[in-house]
Amino acid sequence: MGRTADYSKQSCSIAAALEVIGDPWTLLVIRDAFSGLSRFEQWQEHLGVARNVLAARLKTLVAHGILEPRVYSERPLRHEYVLTKKGKDLYAVLLTLHGWGSKYMYGDGAGVAIIHKACGNLLDPGLACNCCGEKVERRDIELVKRPGKPVGEIMAELRAKEEAA
Amino acid sequence: MGRTADYSKQSCSIAAALEVIGDPWTLLVIRDAFSGLSRFEQWQEHLGVARNVLAARLKTLVAHGILEPRVYSERPLRHEYVLTKKGKDLYAVLLTLHGWGSKYMYGDGAGVAIIHKACGNLLDPGLACNCCGEKVERRDIELVKRPGKPVGEIMAELRAKEEAA
Repeated sequence: MGRTADYSKQSCSIAAALEVIGDPWTLLVIRDAFSGLSRFEQWQEHLGVARNVLAARLKTLVAHGILEPRVYSERPLRHEYVLTKKGKDLYAVLLTLHGWGSKYMYGDGAGVAIIHKACGNLLDPGLACNCCGEKVERRDIELVKRPGKPVGEIMAELRAKEEAA
Repeated sequence: MGRTADYSKQSCSIAAALEVIGDPWTLLVIRDAFSGLSRFEQWQEHLGVARNVLAARLKTLVAHGILEPRVYSERPLRHEYVLTKKGKDLYAVLLTLHGWGSKYMYGDGAGVAIIHKACGNLLDPGLACNCCGEKVERRDIELVKRPGKPVGEIMAELRAKEEAA
């Protein structure tokens, strides 16, 4: 979302996440990576996004370690892009977005249905605590304010790490 | 995200959700509503967002039934904005974004910590199936493609409903 929103003074993990994945098209590029797309032409055809925009999104996703380029053709040299662990860990963000969009905008009418294999029903995603395993409702959490670095500083540190690497 | 991305030909609940809440600043306006902000000046001061941008975001969120205006002063006439059920149901989207941003960008250093009261630890959000209650990992779901209406059509239907209401 960086384009028109400046989150640099916020000190918030949500703002920091949006700084990387909140950009137009980015979440749909990642969505399609989850459904198996890995090549520029596949995304370009499926999303109908401008080639320069798609190229910029893929570059950013690689720079942030969300997608990883892999050579699939030596000559001509061609890369495909696969989700890293960091990228795969976005599945919960996409599934909760899908759940909300299905519930409030599409009903069950969208082009892709998500089935929970264990119970066989359409997935209605809720939250669970990875620490204790319990379901988490909104009333079960507490927000604690504390001093924290602004997003701008965090992004600068991440860039410095990348350049050092 | 509508500004630079056209999702209208997609048939996907994720794209439909982003069409409404994926816009720059929108998710942070909703985030702040969860932490108790309800008045224009509060958001404007906390986000440092341009007044015309904030006004447009609030208008969209009200139009989509995510925020609900309430009069808090008769003269001068002043409204505050509170989350509806539809808005409150976005908590899982925000918490999974917060979890990912905390894990991969901030560590535990962000300005707001989210505590899971039941176990007392920082919330590491996973997914649960609201139908069977089981935890949901990425391998537990299956994507099923099916014919579906494009987002553009869905948005037009929603607009028509609003106008009829």
